[in-house]
Amino acid sequence: KIVKEVLFFPDKGIACPNVSCEDKNCRYSHESTCLRALVNHLKSAKKSLDVCVCVFSCHELAETLVYVSKGGVPVRVLSDKSIGDVVNSRIPDLRAKGIPVRIHNTPYLMHHKFAIVDNELLLCGSFNWTRQAVTGNNESVIVTNDKDFVERFCNEFSRLWELNSPQ
Amino acid sequence: KIVKEVLFFPDKGIACPNVSCEDKNCRYSHESTCLRALVNHLKSAKKSLDVCVCVFSCHELAETLVYVSKGGVPVRVLSDKSIGDVVNSRIPDLRAKGIPVRIHNTPYLMHHKFAIVDNELLLCGSFNWTRQAVTGNNESVIVTNDKDFVERFCNEFSRLWELNSPQ
Ligand SMILES: [Zn+2]
Ligand SMILES: [Zn+2]
Repeated sequence: KIVKEVLFFPDKGIACPNVSCEDKNCRYSHESTCLRALVNHLKSAKKSLDVCVCVFSCHELAETLVYVSKGGVPVRVLSDKSIGDVVNSRIPDLRAKGIPVRIHNTPYLMHHKFAIVDNELLLCGSFNWTRQAVTGNNESVIVTNDKDFVERFCNEFSRLWELNSPQ
Repeated sequence: KIVKEVLFFPDKGIACPNVSCEDKNCRYSHESTCLRALVNHLKSAKKSLDVCVCVFSCHELAETLVYVSKGGVPVRVLSDKSIGDVVNSRIPDLRAKGIPVRIHNTPYLMHHKFAIVDNELLLCGSFNWTRQAVTGNNESVIVTNDKDFVERFCNEFSRLWELNSPQ
């Protein structure tokens, strides 16, 4: 089955974490949102989930990785040292939950924003994993299982993972 | 003909603007670089060239747009107001050369980084049009002429172009 999607942010709100929510006072969004589509793709991981994203501060996406990891799927996160300056960085949290994280630390940025599910599905675009990117910014994420794209990003992830040591 | 490429930056240097350069002392790179591949794609425009990029400070890419525009191809540039804070913004230059530019001005970012050649070829990824992104950062750009992707980005460009007035 061929997957070809584009997610265009911003969403109108943050998707409610409770899929069957009936709370009339709930402040979350219950429409289909790009964040929900993104989360569903990440949660579909059965063998591996590799995330390579410059800035990671979105609580909902960190929760998603923890959920996948607790389900027994190896999750790896590559991020940039600039994350240290970001308010609400999720990196310490992810490490505390046992997810291996490697940080790119040079004068230049590891500016990628992509994730690979099961070495088969690529999510790639302008989208940093921040709340502002979800509900504020104009952002685009291409979702594809085209091998010609996926394989090249798998190689790039492996290369950068080896280059950056655990700290 | 199907186009499916991924450009992974950084390049080792800036591609020499002189394709047939034989200057032994030339400091530019004469290997095939991602920047050169990007420039060649942009220069292939025959009908239109639409650029939607959050930060635009790279001199070589501005020169490329001017070259395309002087060849009679309509070029449009959408960028973010944050560009005003960026050293070496190419926006005033582009306007001075007659290229229409619209600036997204809200508390949030127009954070896209894509370009569309002839409404047929999409270049999309993490790559801002800055010198640092070319020779320093780790960046990725997907190049594809798959209609399912291209059309959705054409729509997004049109939508944002209409939303933001010329200033
Ligand atoms: Zn709810
Ligand atoms: Zn030269």
